[in-house]
Parts: sequence; C-alpha cells; structure tokens
Amino acid sequence: MHWLRNTWYQVGWSSELEQGEMLSRTVIGTPLVLFRQSNGAVSALLDQCPHRFAPLSMGRLDGDMLVCGYHGLGFEGSGQCALNPHGKISKGLKVGSFPVVEKDTVIWVWLGESEAELDAVPDSSFIEAAPEHGRIYGYMPTKANYQLLTDNILDLSHADYLHPTTLGGMMTNSQFSIEQQGESFVLKWDSEDQAVPGAFAPEIPPPQTGDFSIRVEWHAPARMILHMAAKPHSERGEFTPQSYSPTLHNMTPETETSTHYFYCATRPVNTPPPEVMALITKSIEHAFVAEDKPILEKQQERIGNRDFWSLKPRMLSVDTGPVQVRRLLDKMIEKEQAQSGA
Amino acid sequence: MHWLRNTWYQVGWSSELEQGEMLSRTVIGTPLVLFRQSNGAVSALLDQCPHRFAPLSMGRLDGDMLVCGYHGLGFEGSGQCALNPHGKISKGLKVGSFPVVEKDTVIWVWLGESEAELDAVPDSSFIEAAPEHGRIYGYMPTKANYQLLTDNILDLSHADYLHPTTLGGMMTNSQFSIEQQGESFVLKWDSEDQAVPGAFAPEIPPPQTGDFSIRVEWHAPARMILHMAAKPHSERGEFTPQSYSPTLHNMTPETETSTHYFYCATRPVNTPPPEVMALITKSIEHAFVAEDKPILEKQQERIGNRDFWSLKPRMLSVDTGPVQVRRLLDKMIEKEQAQSGA
Amino acid sequence: MHWLRNTWYQVGWSSELEQGEMLSRTVIGTPLVLFRQSNGAVSALLDQCPHRFAPLSMGRLDGDMLVCGYHGLGFEGSGQCALNPHGKISKGLKVGSFPVVEKDTVIWVWLGESEAELDAVPDSSFIEAAPEHGRIYGYMPTKANYQLLTDNILDLSHADYLHPTTLGGMMTNSQFSIEQQGESFVLKWDSEDQAVPGAFAPEIPPPQTGDFSIRVEWHAPARMILHMAAKPHSERGEFTPQSYSPTLHNMTPETETSTHYFYCATRPVNTPPPEVMALITKSIEHAFVAEDKPILEKQQERIGNRDFWSLKPRMLSVDTGPVQVRRLLDKMIEKEQAQSGA
Repeated sequence: MHWLRNTWYQVGWSSELEQGEMLSRTVIGTPLVLFRQSNGAVSALLDQCPHRFAPLSMGRLDGDMLVCGYHGLGFEGSGQCALNPHGKISKGLKVGSFPVVEKDTVIWVWLGESEAELDAVPDSSFIEAAPEHGRIYGYMPTKANYQLLTDNILDLSHADYLHPTTLGGMMTNSQFSIEQQGESFVLKWDSEDQAVPGAFAPEIPPPQTGDFSIRVEWHAPARMILHMAAKPHSERGEFTPQSYSPTLHNMTPETETSTHYFYCATRPVNTPPPEVMALITKSIEHAFVAEDKPILEKQQERIGNRDFWSLKPRMLSVDTGPVQVRRLLDKMIEKEQAQSGA
Repeated sequence: MHWLRNTWYQVGWSSELEQGEMLSRTVIGTPLVLFRQSNGAVSALLDQCPHRFAPLSMGRLDGDMLVCGYHGLGFEGSGQCALNPHGKISKGLKVGSFPVVEKDTVIWVWLGESEAELDAVPDSSFIEAAPEHGRIYGYMPTKANYQLLTDNILDLSHADYLHPTTLGGMMTNSQFSIEQQGESFVLKWDSEDQAVPGAFAPEIPPPQTGDFSIRVEWHAPARMILHMAAKPHSERGEFTPQSYSPTLHNMTPETETSTHYFYCATRPVNTPPPEVMALITKSIEHAFVAEDKPILEKQQERIGNRDFWSLKPRMLSVDTGPVQVRRLLDKMIEKEQAQSGA
Repeated sequence: MHWLRNTWYQVGWSSELEQGEMLSRTVIGTPLVLFRQSNGAVSALLDQCPHRFAPLSMGRLDGDMLVCGYHGLGFEGSGQCALNPHGKISKGLKVGSFPVVEKDTVIWVWLGESEAELDAVPDSSFIEAAPEHGRIYGYMPTKANYQLLTDNILDLSHADYLHPTTLGGMMTNSQFSIEQQGESFVLKWDSEDQAVPGAFAPEIPPPQTGDFSIRVEWHAPARMILHMAAKPHSERGEFTPQSYSPTLHNMTPETETSTHYFYCATRPVNTPPPEVMALITKSIEHAFVAEDKPILEKQQERIGNRDFWSLKPRMLSVDTGPVQVRRLLDKMIEKEQAQSGA
C-alpha cells in the first residue's frame, strides 16, 4: 500500500465524538473504533475483538471500558482486557491500541510502527484563533485515492473550470510560484483586478474587481493549509498577514481508493456576520460536494486499480505543484518502507 | 471449499414447496431447483439447463416434468430429458439430479460423490411431536460462513451479551460440560436461582427466579438440536426428560460466505396458548434477526476471505465447544477429501 | 478479450445525439464520448482527458470543441487539443479519436488498429425505406456477453417457449436451412398453416391460421437483419420480396459481460396505422425487455467468467446456426489477433 505510516492522520473532528460515544472509521486500511473517556481523553482501538473479530463498535461503553457486544469482553483505552466474564484475564488478552492526540478540535491518530512522535502533532491552532461562528467544518468521504484529492488542492487552476460560479475565475490569470521548505512546500497564486468569484461577492460586490492572494502549505502525507486573501482592487496597499483566512484541507486515506476529506475554512479577522457566513458555507459545500466529489470519483473510476504514472498523464504547467509533491512523497514512503524492511 | 459433501443438507421446509411449485436455492455452491411432483415427492435438479445454462427455475412445471423456459426441453425428476421439441432425445441429454428425502417437515438433499445414505437421514421427529401451533419455524439467510453460525450456538454465553432482553442472563453463571459421542457432541449448561430472561417471563413471571437446563447436540456438519428446560426456582425436583423443549438449528452452507439458517423451536409439552407462543416467536425473531444476524455478518466482513485460524483468535473458556467441534469437522472433511482424491 | 477490432460497431442511434449534445458509451471496453458538431457530423473521442483522466463527458461543448470540466482543456473532434488555458499546446497534447460514420440513422464507430474501412460501413438503408411511423427503434442494455445475444437471434425456436404470447408458436414446426455466403450466413425458417402469434393477430386475426417466412442474415461480429413475412394461410401465392419486413438486431459489446442491444423493426410496405404499430411495439418490448433480457442475464450469471465451451453445452438441432456462427467468428478473431501480433 502506498501510504506513509509513521505520521499523524486526522481521524475526525472533536465535535464528532461526545463523551460516551463511539465512532468507527477506517484509516489506511485499519478499522478503528474511537471513544471518549470520562476524563475527556479519546482512545483508539482496533475495531475488531481479538476473541472472534466482531467490531467493538457494535458493543457499548461502560464508563471508560469498551464492552464487546458479542461475549462481553471489556477493554480499556490501552487495549488491555479489563473484564472477562468467562474466566481469567491473561496479559496477552488485549486489542491493538493506537496513540491519539486531540488538539485544535482535530483528533489525530498514529498508526506507525515506530513510536508516536508527540512533538510532531501538526499545528492547526489557526482554527481556534477564529471565533466559533467563523469556522466552517466539513467532512466529505470520497471514493478516490487521497493523492487525487491532494492534486486537486495543489492545482487550484481547476477552480476556474470546475467551480466557475463560486471559487473560480482568477486562478488561471494568477502569478504562480512554488518553494520547497524541507519536506514541505509552499505554493503561491497572486492576481489583481479580477472579476470577483461568487463566494466573495457578498464581501466585494460587483461591479468592483478584486485582488487575490493564495498561499498553500503542503505537509506530508496529505495535509494542506490554504491561506486566502481578497480585497477590492480599488483598495490600496499590500495584503497584511492578518488579511489571510486559512482553510485546512486534510486528506486521510481510508483505503487505496477512498479518502476521508476533512476541511475547515476559517475567518479569524473581520469575521462576517452569521448570515454572510451561511452564504459562504453554501458556496463551499456546493463546490466540494456537487463539483469536486463527482469528478474525483469518476477520475478514480477511469484509473481503476492501475498505477497513476503507468497511464502516462500529459502534464501541464499547472501540475508543477502536484508533480513535485508526488515525487517527494514517493521518496518519503520508499525511505520509510526501506527502513522498516517492508 | 471447506465442506463435507457426503452428508444430508437441509434445503428447505416442507411448507416452502407446495405441489406444482419450484424453489431455487444454492447449497454448498451448487444451484438447485426443487419441485414437488404430483405424488408429493420432491425432486432436486441442478438449476441450470444442460443446453444453454438458463436456470430451470425460470421455466414451468408441466405435470411432473420441469420445462426449460428458454427452448422447451423437459426434464423428469430423475434429471433425464423427457421432452425435446427439436429432435431426438439422446440418453446423455440430462441434467444433474440429487437424492432428496422429506422427513419431519424437513427437505434434505444429498450432494455427495458417494451414494446417498438413506439410513443416515437425520431424525427431527421431535418437530412433529409438538402440535402445529407449538412450532416456530424460521429461515434466515445470513451473509456469513456456516461455521460462524455453528460457533454461535455452541457458545451460548453470547446470549447474555447479545440477547440481554430475550434469551440471556443466566448463561455465564451456568455449569458447563461437553462430551463427545462418536462423531457428535453433547454440550450442557445448567443454572439455578437466576433472573428470568425475557422470553421466559410469560411463563415464569418476575419476581420469581428460575432454574434452567440446556442440552445441545451437535451433528456434522452443522446441525444442532438445543433442548431447553426452565422452571420457577421455587418448584422442587429435577427436570424430567419431558421438561425439555427442543429447537433445531440447522446451518446449510450456501457459499463460503453465506448460509441458509433454518430453525424450528418447538413446545411439545405444556404448549403455551397461541398468544404466548406469539410472544415467544417475537422474542426469538428479535434475537435472531436483529441481534445475531448483524453481528455474524460483520464478523464475516472483518474476516473477509482469510482463514479463521490465520487471524489467531484469542480463545476463551467458552470456546471449548466451538474449538472441539471445528477440530472434529476439519478432520472429517480432510478424511473425506483424502478418500475422494480431491 | 474475445472481440473483433477491425470492424464497425453501432454506438447509438442518430436520434440519441442532438446537436450540441454528448453521449458517453463504452464499446469493447473503451469508454467513448460522442458529440455532434455544428455541421452535423458526429465525433467520437476517448472519454478520458489525457491530462488527469476525468471523463470528457463531464465537461461541456463550446461550439465544436469539447472542453474538459476539470481544467478547461479543449479538444476538437480530431482529438487534437485546441485550447489550453494554462500554456502552449504541444502537438502531442491530444486524446484518442475514432472514425465515425452516420448512415441510415445509425451511428457507427471504428475502434480497430488498422485504418477504418469506409466502404465497409454496413448497409441499413432498409430502415429509412420505411416511413417514420413504420419504424420501432429500441436500445436495451443487457448484462450478458454479446454472443449469447447473437445465439438468441440465430436460434429463433426459443420464441415458442420464451415468447409464447407474442412472437412464438410456429418456429419449432418450421422448415429450417442455413447457408454460408462468404463471411456471412443466411438462416431460413418457413412454416404454413400455423396458429398466429400474438404480435401478428392485429393483422391476421384468429381463427385464421397463417403462413410465415423468416430470413436472418448474420454479419460479423454480431449484426443481424431479420426479414419476416406473414400472411393468412387462406391467401394464395408465394411471398414476394416486398412481403418481408426487416428488423435490425445489432449487438455491440460493452464489456465481456454486457452488451448494447440496438434493434429497429420496420414495416416498409403496408405499414399498419399508428394504433396497430403501437400494439406491435408493445408486443416487441414485452418480448425483449420482460422475457429475453432476464433469461440472457441469468444465463450469463450461471456461466460467470467461465469459457462457454468449457461448460460442455449439450447442443441440439436448433443450434446449427449459433454453432456455425461462433466457429466462423472465432476464426475471424483468431486471424485478426494473429495479424496484429496480439
């Protein structure tokens, strides 16, 4: 499988898991059950009882213990069996457990072979820097390989063609640049005096034109933060760091051909009033669900289970980002697999 | 395929096949068409015309002859072609036919390579020993390997966790024993002074406690008879043989990952009145359809097409029955395959 | 794949493609997008953008150019890229394009390796020889290999058993003959003084009996023209060439196990009034959709992905046509594959 293992994957949003609730979700092919303990901490276990393989998520929570619905074995967040109504509990009676960190309203899980790198949990503090009503959270499961979803964000020119009424219009005319920073990339798109895309019309109403600036950071394996700034062209001056509104685009592989797409668009500064945020939310959801998702899934359908490169895609100038990122990620995965002897 | 071949499989209930009707059902991977002849006897043919492979069950019955719906070839219950509107009938023009025995309201079929053992047709005479209104017949097709369904009956401790409101409550506290008798097993569970499970509450209403005794006979490949006795704990004395109500649990493999589950619960003695039987029926159906079936199918989903033992299940004391039975059945299958040179 | 490549396949009816419309259809495993240009001509391209494999049929037509919905590349009917909003257009930036001929209301496509044989476009001029209200067009996608659909037409005896109320009744009693003409076959069925099938009852009402004559031409790979004549038995004389009403049965493989079935029944002479044509249409659709399609799909299900001959079908006299045709087609495919070195 073409996956990085020693890394943190987003498995959900904090809001998806109230205390006493469970959530079943498969990450890089591994079925997980998440549950929130009484102290608020989240645990992640293999969603498969070691006894007879029933999904533990079909059981129930008894305090901080997850009790299998089939024969009543209870497991702590550590994975250790703590209840066996049928006899002794051997030390070996346990289920796989995975390190979890909850930070910035994101739930992260570590599925790596090496020890979880607690100081490498990604920073998404920009989310909570925005007021609650200035955040648009989304979760869009998509039947496509995660790298197709990465390509989609790293080649924003697609917005002009796929999202003409909401996000697109000025991308193809933008100045583009890309810069590698260690194992990350920063991609930039800048444009001036452009027609204003629909999603920005509530704030920059026509017939004004606009200036736009976008910065996308890519981090392995498939986490991107998109910073976007817009202003009326008539307004003088440069964009300040405060002008940018960040959006998280986090692609977590479920299987080789399906992805959990988590996104969170924020408006930390000059947060529009709720009725404008509602319009922006509608634009974003239309673009993602009605436009991105169908074409990504059809792309995957055409590719089938063939290797992407074996199909000899005809790359364009707009693919600079996607190609450089794919190459770096390939190297990182190869390196990891060489180290693990896999 | 991990199946015993030289054995009788239940393919249906007598009531499923009125005279002049057909029934299409696949047993150990073989598509069968059953039909009832004018003398009442049931025939079983391969449900595939030898001419062009159309299912014969898409045709029609003309007296005792099954006529293919595509080109009009007619076949007798023996499989021999008896009607060819297009020319002569060669001796070789026939379709596979399989020995059928109907006994005790059960229709049995023999798919073995060796000759059908007519004196080995299983005895289910206990069914007709109960009055008609004292029988609860069921058929539950389940997307799981038949051995998972066998395990389910041989480890009744699951009732306490999966069926807490209907059948469970006293199993984990029972005295358990198992005894091999030739190529069969008898498993016993006995308990005293226990809270009364929901399905028994109509007859032993709370706050009374109850005494319970269960005997399960297992016969290869996957036929079980469960004898259950219950009485108020306040009632003195031992259970007599007449106290026990037998239930048939008969698991017929359809494919490697799907099973025809036939069951018949009987109340031969002290048959409750119809309104109580209706409550018991409801309890049983809830337990089977709403509780057993989903967990069995999810177990199968988790196992996928991997070998059960390769997943290294962590066996508990309650698995004594399932494990001994699996081992014996494995040996019987190996022996049969060695003999047939398969 | 068991397909002839250097041949014309019907991909649709003219009426399915208005100007400015697109049609996505897979032929012998190749996804195609068809579109009609402003001069009326039809183009066929691979329905897969060479850039990132999105289906071009998810894009839009801009005049005579098909514009990909993902990144805005535009392609001419020749397949050459004519619009790249992101940079230069290299000569190699193109998508597969396939010769198309529209003739007799049929749209034909050439998917062969060798050059399209323009003088070999099949003749279906009989269609337009009938007045418009005397044509019954049909398209029936069927989940079965195209050769099973060919067999169905070449062994019309099935009508007596599968279509007893509409088309059948007199086939089994017919005189049958078959003649090879180069790489084609002509099959004949003639019968006299027969009960009149339902579909002919509007024109030859009972209790009259009828005389019937059928000629089927088969052309590789799976194109058949069925000429049918019927008259009251009381009417003296022979059938004239004008007595015959031709029907096209054109089977285009979609995949190994699915077929586009195109048919067009015509009544060029003595065209019945519209209300009778409506009855005939109903009979035909009932026979095809409610009777042929289910049995063809179940046949395919029973065969699975096994080779037809490996199942040792028991051939009957009525299979003379199907068997001779399968043998000739096998030879033609083998020859073609040998020549292409595939």
